[in-house]
Amino acid sequence: MDNILLIASSESDANIYYASRFLAPDSFIYLATNGKSFLLMSDLEVDRARAQSKVDHVLSYSDYEEKAKQSAKKSDGPTTSIAVVSVLLKEQGITDLTVPFNFPLEYGDALRALGYKLSIKKEPLFEARAIKTADEVAAIRNAQISVESAVDSAMDILRKSKIEGNHIYSEGVLLTSEFVRQKLHLKMMEKGCVAEHTIIACGVDACDPHNVGAGPLRANEPIIFDVFPRSIETRYFADMSRTVVKGIASNGLKKLYDTVLEGQELGISRVRSGANGKDIHEEINLLFENRGYKTGRVNGRMEGFFHGTGHGVGLDIHEHPSISRKDCILQQGEVVTVEPGLYYPDIGAVRIEDMVLVEENGCKNLTTYPKFLEIK
Amino acid sequence: MDNILLIASSESDANIYYASRFLAPDSFIYLATNGKSFLLMSDLEVDRARAQSKVDHVLSYSDYEEKAKQSAKKSDGPTTSIAVVSVLLKEQGITDLTVPFNFPLEYGDALRALGYKLSIKKEPLFEARAIKTADEVAAIRNAQISVESAVDSAMDILRKSKIEGNHIYSEGVLLTSEFVRQKLHLKMMEKGCVAEHTIIACGVDACDPHNVGAGPLRANEPIIFDVFPRSIETRYFADMSRTVVKGIASNGLKKLYDTVLEGQELGISRVRSGANGKDIHEEINLLFENRGYKTGRVNGRMEGFFHGTGHGVGLDIHEHPSISRKDCILQQGEVVTVEPGLYYPDIGAVRIEDMVLVEENGCKNLTTYPKFLEIK
Repeated sequence: MDNILLIASSESDANIYYASRFLAPDSFIYLATNGKSFLLMSDLEVDRARAQSKVDHVLSYSDYEEKAKQSAKKSDGPTTSIAVVSVLLKEQGITDLTVPFNFPLEYGDALRALGYKLSIKKEPLFEARAIKTADEVAAIRNAQISVESAVDSAMDILRKSKIEGNHIYSEGVLLTSEFVRQKLHLKMMEKGCVAEHTIIACGVDACDPHNVGAGPLRANEPIIFDVFPRSIETRYFADMSRTVVKGIASNGLKKLYDTVLEGQELGISRVRSGANGKDIHEEINLLFENRGYKTGRVNGRMEGFFHGTGHGVGLDIHEHPSISRKDCILQQGEVVTVEPGLYYPDIGAVRIEDMVLVEENGCKNLTTYPKFLEIK
Repeated sequence: MDNILLIASSESDANIYYASRFLAPDSFIYLATNGKSFLLMSDLEVDRARAQSKVDHVLSYSDYEEKAKQSAKKSDGPTTSIAVVSVLLKEQGITDLTVPFNFPLEYGDALRALGYKLSIKKEPLFEARAIKTADEVAAIRNAQISVESAVDSAMDILRKSKIEGNHIYSEGVLLTSEFVRQKLHLKMMEKGCVAEHTIIACGVDACDPHNVGAGPLRANEPIIFDVFPRSIETRYFADMSRTVVKGIASNGLKKLYDTVLEGQELGISRVRSGANGKDIHEEINLLFENRGYKTGRVNGRMEGFFHGTGHGVGLDIHEHPSISRKDCILQQGEVVTVEPGLYYPDIGAVRIEDMVLVEENGCKNLTTYPKFLEIK
């Protein structure tokens, strides 16, 4: 069994949150060894960590800092956090450590200078983090239910709105990306989820897949919704994309939509335990090429299908595994998105995204929101 | 001039966001050398980065990956991101690099294996990030205006509520931490700010400074509000704490409140360019001790004043500088909190926090919300 050392803030590092189930804004220290887990916590956090974290032993950083000072004896300099960690490592008889790829270089150097041998482990640091438990799937599904409800309320605004020229009006208000995004963010917050940078991108904006969109939404042009909030309570994410047109879609856009949908259905049909994400991604790529949709740079801008097919979803919005041009074998219990897209400034942009649970002989779609292009 | 290399996601790393002003969920590469700045961006992000980032040159990661493959020739293995970065470093004639303390260890090792010499720079990596420009101060103040408005709407709920026994009712609803927090989060989102984990902690909960609070708010007991949202648009934070009682505060609590307020006013009076944060923190500590409020562990739990006096606020909620037991010289243009607190389970908990702008001969308070203990 490896000795795993993490030093990070659990607000920004999902591994230390996963290992400790303790949320704190500042960096803290986690150690797992011999089936036991430890936190070294500041005076500010130690009592809360004892009450809330799932580790076996919550130790006082101040106590270990005192021990480090005593063993350093005459040194006047400040006691570094690595000197403090080292007291605990010595108590536990540890000389070899496994650390994540993103372990801070300064701490890595300091540990090596003290004689510790470090092994770097790539993601997934904790294999179990990729394989979701029933509770984790329920947390993701709950976030997804909120997404679907919020997206539907945004679609309702479009359904009830009126087209005048190229513009769309809802109860006299000119509909913009910003207006609909704000409504959707408020709906998400009502449901205890934080959504930021929700993509509501129309026309050419939508051809840049991570452009959030700005300005008036236009009738008869594709509008991509990509919504990926985190539940405040559980900290799990959900992720869904839909593409709609208020009004009439051109024939070119309809064909583009049908092709992306065909690609997405193909991808979903291929997701199962043991499948290679790379094969799934390449099969969708091939389908798009066979339908005449090429990928590459045109006038210096990327067109076609130039992002991955999918990614794991959990405590991070993008986590292991991937369905992309890299080899990656899917495993039962993983939650992944399937979200191909095609982007052509002269036709339009379409992305359709569901989240699915990888199963032994297929997958279960965690997304139940309907797929439709036109809103009359 | 140092050559600075960053590899991180700007959603979670404020330095790469500060340097690039480009927001992306996945890790990307930033290099500054000879007064020029570069990004290496994936196909998915390259066009958006060209439109939105403030760097001089946005380069295509795919192009550099191709160059790395060609120079590796017969290698069949995957091309690592460090091999790709190395092509750019060689083009720029760079052999020495400055990286942040939290540069990923795996990348540090890989760069050293290729012969690059790394210098690790502690925070602040960018000195200028600590010294706020007029625009940055305005962004923080704007977030703070939203905080004050949202907190006042929460206070309004308390003002209009009725006490029955120990409990507080608002229009017939039993007031809980969760209820008031949700109202406050919605208000913040209406104003384009994301607040999470807002502390609305009553009684003994409040004695654990980062406990967010749960369950019914009780009359005649201290309730700590600590609100620290981020503006979605600017990404700057604000931070404010207030302590109130619905009903009547005990004499012991009133004295505790007056002492914390005296400590806070003392702290604010000491903040100026050139002051040492450590001296300010120790002076407040001494005041509290002189007033008879001791700090230490009682029955295994921390009591008294056992957190820092303040921290920098900007693109991170906790950033350089600090006003704590560490030496740290304050500089003109920094924005810091001044937030002493005293916590005793048998008396109550009080924390009062303002954000101030460090000036040459003092400071400017960016917080205008009044300070009051009792709400009748």
